[in-house]
Amino acid sequence: MDTRRVYTVADLASHVGGTLFGQDSTVITAATSLEAAHANAIVFAEGRQALRRALGTPAGAIISDVRPDVLGPPVPGGRPFPAVIFASRARRAMAEACQLLFEGYPREAVGRHPTAVVDPTATLGEGVAVGPHVVVGPRCRVGGRTTLRAGVVLDEGAAVGDDCYLFPGVVIGPNCVIGARSIIHPNAVVGGEGFGFVAGEDYVTKQPQFGRVVVGTDCEIGACCTLDRGTFDDTVLGDDVKLDNLVQVGHNVRIGSHVQVSAQTAFAGRAEIGDYALIAGQVGIYNGIRVGERGRVKARAGVLRNVPPGGDVWGHPARGSRAAIRETLLIERLPKMARELERLRARVAALENAEGPRGT
Amino acid sequence: MDTRRVYTVADLASHVGGTLFGQDSTVITAATSLEAAHANAIVFAEGRQALRRALGTPAGAIISDVRPDVLGPPVPGGRPFPAVIFASRARRAMAEACQLLFEGYPREAVGRHPTAVVDPTATLGEGVAVGPHVVVGPRCRVGGRTTLRAGVVLDEGAAVGDDCYLFPGVVIGPNCVIGARSIIHPNAVVGGEGFGFVAGEDYVTKQPQFGRVVVGTDCEIGACCTLDRGTFDDTVLGDDVKLDNLVQVGHNVRIGSHVQVSAQTAFAGRAEIGDYALIAGQVGIYNGIRVGERGRVKARAGVLRNVPPGGDVWGHPARGSRAAIRETLLIERLPKMARELERLRARVAALENAEGPRGT
Amino acid sequence: MDTRRVYTVADLASHVGGTLFGQDSTVITAATSLEAAHANAIVFAEGRQALRRALGTPAGAIISDVRPDVLGPPVPGGRPFPAVIFASRARRAMAEACQLLFEGYPREAVGRHPTAVVDPTATLGEGVAVGPHVVVGPRCRVGGRTTLRAGVVLDEGAAVGDDCYLFPGVVIGPNCVIGARSIIHPNAVVGGEGFGFVAGEDYVTKQPQFGRVVVGTDCEIGACCTLDRGTFDDTVLGDDVKLDNLVQVGHNVRIGSHVQVSAQTAFAGRAEIGDYALIAGQVGIYNGIRVGERGRVKARAGVLRNVPPGGDVWGHPARGSRAAIRETLLIERLPKMARELERLRARVAALENAEGPRGT
Repeated sequence: MDTRRVYTVADLASHVGGTLFGQDSTVITAATSLEAAHANAIVFAEGRQALRRALGTPAGAIISDVRPDVLGPPVPGGRPFPAVIFASRARRAMAEACQLLFEGYPREAVGRHPTAVVDPTATLGEGVAVGPHVVVGPRCRVGGRTTLRAGVVLDEGAAVGDDCYLFPGVVIGPNCVIGARSIIHPNAVVGGEGFGFVAGEDYVTKQPQFGRVVVGTDCEIGACCTLDRGTFDDTVLGDDVKLDNLVQVGHNVRIGSHVQVSAQTAFAGRAEIGDYALIAGQVGIYNGIRVGERGRVKARAGVLRNVPPGGDVWGHPARGSRAAIRETLLIERLPKMARELERLRARVAALENAEGPRGT
Repeated sequence: MDTRRVYTVADLASHVGGTLFGQDSTVITAATSLEAAHANAIVFAEGRQALRRALGTPAGAIISDVRPDVLGPPVPGGRPFPAVIFASRARRAMAEACQLLFEGYPREAVGRHPTAVVDPTATLGEGVAVGPHVVVGPRCRVGGRTTLRAGVVLDEGAAVGDDCYLFPGVVIGPNCVIGARSIIHPNAVVGGEGFGFVAGEDYVTKQPQFGRVVVGTDCEIGACCTLDRGTFDDTVLGDDVKLDNLVQVGHNVRIGSHVQVSAQTAFAGRAEIGDYALIAGQVGIYNGIRVGERGRVKARAGVLRNVPPGGDVWGHPARGSRAAIRETLLIERLPKMARELERLRARVAALENAEGPRGT
Repeated sequence: MDTRRVYTVADLASHVGGTLFGQDSTVITAATSLEAAHANAIVFAEGRQALRRALGTPAGAIISDVRPDVLGPPVPGGRPFPAVIFASRARRAMAEACQLLFEGYPREAVGRHPTAVVDPTATLGEGVAVGPHVVVGPRCRVGGRTTLRAGVVLDEGAAVGDDCYLFPGVVIGPNCVIGARSIIHPNAVVGGEGFGFVAGEDYVTKQPQFGRVVVGTDCEIGACCTLDRGTFDDTVLGDDVKLDNLVQVGHNVRIGSHVQVSAQTAFAGRAEIGDYALIAGQVGIYNGIRVGERGRVKARAGVLRNVPPGGDVWGHPARGSRAAIRETLLIERLPKMARELERLRARVAALENAEGPRGT
């Protein structure tokens, strides 16, 4: 899909702080893959080989971590070279160029759609767009320029900050708080009731949940995520937390800032995650477990023991990734080990026999 | 978050059947954590150490499984002691006190919101609250005092019992049944179509699903759970079943009563779960597998073999927890075992050499 | 649940291409389990034993892969035999008979419900049924005879083909495409934004997502599934793809045709799945991994390495199922192996001692 914004290569190079090689006046209207590149497209190429391939496409510009002058003589054929924007953090530069080119999310009209139901005690900031069939409950607050897409429900007392964007079907639970500039994807539930029951031999008693979910600024919460309110205190996400789809956040979980979490991961009650942690997909963090700052949890790990700051774990139970990988590969050698053990036993028995009867 | 209900410590002690030590007239308006305790708060303390800490907070009352008089002399400082309610099942007592203090879920106005669409052939009990944008299909029945929050959809023929509470975005499939006093959390789907296809070399043929989902009384179903209708017979949940978020229940699963299931667990088709079973999070129960009464399945287990009544399993494939833990810890010793095996082989070879040439 | 359609046994036998034994004029109105069989029901029996049991029920007809005349003399008692439709692919025949008997999904009235919000730039085909509280955005296209149930949202530019059925709460993202005859179950999200961030030491930069989700014809997408749009190119599902509930499809995943995927499986970004692949539940396919045509991935596998066409894998890391099962069973023997290793070491040491002091 192309975008409608128009920049020159020079605009983009300057925006991303890169060094420009070649044509600076080419007009760029879209970011594409190498396969879909066209004369007004910018593409991304990491490494020499990718840059060579990119130079062979009709792309108007390339962002790369390789300077084109290290590649040697230009590609033959006479076709004008694409411009190359060199940036040492090329992926980030490409993301920033894409942000410029991205036309943004669908725009709801500012104001309240006639089918929306907004409680008279709710307060809406300037420039808020309230879509069709939205419900804003009593005492809710919605910050300036925030968009509530079709069917969003803010339960009573919920507060959504400035410049947020809530996609269709999102539900925000009672008294929950969403920080400024946060984005919540379709059908996510922020502020369901925590799962708390006291069970004995012959009873299951419900523990009511008094806390809220409090989400910081600049967060993203994926489609069909479920974040539960805390039992007494709150469930808390810091700033700039990015959750992929179908992530479960149990009651009283505390996630720091700048944390990324991939799809289908679950945080059991009271887990604590440090800043800049990177949690992959289908991970389970057990009750009350801590993952330290900049900790990395690899895909499908089950984390039963705390992860120290900067730690890198995998497996179930999760342990240092390198050890876990080594051990896991040995599982594939178990049949061979079992056979060797059998053979050794026979050889030892033969030696014992040769030596004559013994006490043991 | 504080609550608005007001009780004295004596009220609470009597309600939970506990023994009261200290002030009985303190007014309690809220249940909090130790950290957030205040003079009108009740807190929970399990064990001597926690009780000592709780006594040092400004809490007005404490529920504990420890009698304060066993702690020895009172804390110095002259501050009036918090009252202590001793109860042998202290967690349950705390939950019951909290139920008293909990102000309940947000209340929809009784009657039908003007934006709701209720089929004329549907029947609604006394005191039913139908929220904005709700849809109640043909031949549906809704029991007395039940609340349907914003955007709930009851598909044709669905029946919801008395005193139920369906949070926003819940969808109940055609002809499905929800028992009295059940709670369904946002965006859950009870009664999607079972996943049934017959596949061969060159075809995938759909097997239509004729069954329903039938949920007992006093159940809770978490946010974004998906419960599928049965193929010919029904998918059945007993009474007092509590499902956390994002739980998948396949067609023709039968779950007994008083069962608790944590988040992201999946029950494949025809699984059967006995009463009082406790199933942790991210568990997978394979097709047709039975978990006996009071069986416990620990987190992330994959259950391929039946679990006997009272059994306790972990791992994938799930097996007795103690064995599974012992075996799993040995995986971490595999590199060492492999090295030892190597060394032993060398030593045996040396012994064989020393003994002279042999037949093997 | 019974159905309302009425056929004779002869009709059904001819529809499924089976060989009829017994009464051909019995009227069949329902498909049931053996337990719920009645005189107007057709039931399914695979294998001799099941057929014998089925013959003992009051069912009016049986579909079986066993010819009744191989069973020997008829069941005593004088009750008229149920008719038996013999079909070598009996499961498929039963599914086809059920399709005939199935009364179909709930029907929305053709036309636009007065509460629906349809953008004037959207185009709707003949016979489209738009339910209550539906939102159809700018430039959307909806094919003929398609049903949009309550609360469905088509975001701007989305295109849904002919004869589709979207259950309540489904959200289709901007510019996404759904092929003809596809079915999408409640609260599924097709076309959420891909999860793309570039992270460094002290930043998390968003990578906007320009692609779409493009779903082929005859697909089914389960309740609360989440399919993400591609980064530059599209996320693509072929024809006749069947996804169970709560499945995650990351950006730029490409799934072939006739693929079945069970519940809670996740495809990380750029995974590629060949035609006729069969992916079980709770599976994780890692970034960029390929599963070849007719590949089978068993339940809960974590697929880190490509699966060749026709391959059959299990475990985490997934590997050939037979090897994975053998190795996994050996894990349960690890404690025994550890003890044996210990004993062998002692025996070798004893032998070494007996032989006198040695260099090593």
